[in-house]
Amino acid sequence: MSSGSTRKSAAARQPPAVVLLSGGLDSYTAAAIAKRDGFALFALSINYGQRHAAELGASRAVAAALGVERHLELALDLSQIGGSSLTSAAMAVPKDHPIDSSVIPNTYVPARNTIFLSMALGWAEVLGAADIVIGVNALDYSGYPDCRPEFIQGFEQVARLATKAGVEGRPLHIHTPLISLSKAGIIRLGLTLGLDYGLTHSCYDPPPSGRPCGRCDSCRLRAAGFAEVGASDPLIRPAD
Amino acid sequence: MSSGSTRKSAAARQPPAVVLLSGGLDSYTAAAIAKRDGFALFALSINYGQRHAAELGASRAVAAALGVERHLELALDLSQIGGSSLTSAAMAVPKDHPIDSSVIPNTYVPARNTIFLSMALGWAEVLGAADIVIGVNALDYSGYPDCRPEFIQGFEQVARLATKAGVEGRPLHIHTPLISLSKAGIIRLGLTLGLDYGLTHSCYDPPPSGRPCGRCDSCRLRAAGFAEVGASDPLIRPAD
Repeated sequence: MSSGSTRKSAAARQPPAVVLLSGGLDSYTAAAIAKRDGFALFALSINYGQRHAAELGASRAVAAALGVERHLELALDLSQIGGSSLTSAAMAVPKDHPIDSSVIPNTYVPARNTIFLSMALGWAEVLGAADIVIGVNALDYSGYPDCRPEFIQGFEQVARLATKAGVEGRPLHIHTPLISLSKAGIIRLGLTLGLDYGLTHSCYDPPPSGRPCGRCDSCRLRAAGFAEVGASDPLIRPAD
Repeated sequence: MSSGSTRKSAAARQPPAVVLLSGGLDSYTAAAIAKRDGFALFALSINYGQRHAAELGASRAVAAALGVERHLELALDLSQIGGSSLTSAAMAVPKDHPIDSSVIPNTYVPARNTIFLSMALGWAEVLGAADIVIGVNALDYSGYPDCRPEFIQGFEQVARLATKAGVEGRPLHIHTPLISLSKAGIIRLGLTLGLDYGLTHSCYDPPPSGRPCGRCDSCRLRAAGFAEVGASDPLIRPAD
């Protein structure tokens, strides 16, 4: 695992990297860092039966803005498994509740990052890419176990055991450029990179208007981040 | 990882296990061993855009024969990634070529077992199941990296890091009851368990007739196994 930067040597000519792109603020920033660092981006988005499928539209806008080499959207209906308020209509997304990263909220989607990283790994193997980028963040987050550095390190090891690339001794890295940043730090960095966060979608439970609900953990972490930076969120209109 | 047996203490009342069920001979046998050992079976089959999608019909027949609690079929179109003769129409399945497990053939599907185990992990987490069963076999196999014991051990570790169950210190085991058996040993064990291998499908590249091609690695490993046991394969009619 490497954090903070995905910088490659200047000699490398646009090596390919598979980037998990949800359409949210974090993955957009992580992808932009990888682009800054010289990677050719192969963006992977997953339609997993999420309540906030609106993020897939955002992922397309973000992919276009980043000028990715290819944007692949795979479908895997995790609502058949359920067990999360993001994939099960029978569970409600928590609103206005204290964010405590020592408690795993019901927005946790069981094994989501393991599943998504596995898909990214498969595509990386086919592309001959040695690099996978994921925008996980272990500071201002919701206590999800699969956002922690120890999980990413473990996955990187298993990725080497799982693949032809690993057997042949070729490198394989999972980049987590946001892992130790606060939400404000992520936004500050993104703004210096010129990112348009108006393209993104963060809300877990968008009302019919499609505007952010403002009350779920994802909206509240985002709002707190923009407030700390002293910037306004382009998704929030003054009337909101 | 535990191999050889999935036996639970007699006191345990039918604990749930998620079993990856392809419809092939190996996964049927692995599932039957788990059933013998007292697990309630939750079978998971994946429609991944495989050339031999006929195996999904076999998985339904096998699930019914095993009396599983539930059979879940998830779709994930890996043909969009390609890179394998099992998922890409542009690549041919090797026929009549020497089986050498030191060379990874093009039937290898990049990251397949990592992806499938991740899905099984998600479902196990929702079910509260501490056990996942996979019919991998590291002896008479095709040299796939993700069939090796070191991969399974690595995945078991990452599964604990990835999940709420792991964070809370609950057990999580990947059972590989076939890992050290030969194909003949698997068939011999299955026959003693009364399994009807006529329900299964192994061929990677079935001709329009739906009969086994007899020439791909999977057909040939199966035929060699039955021959070594001295049993006839119910899928092979005398006229074949």
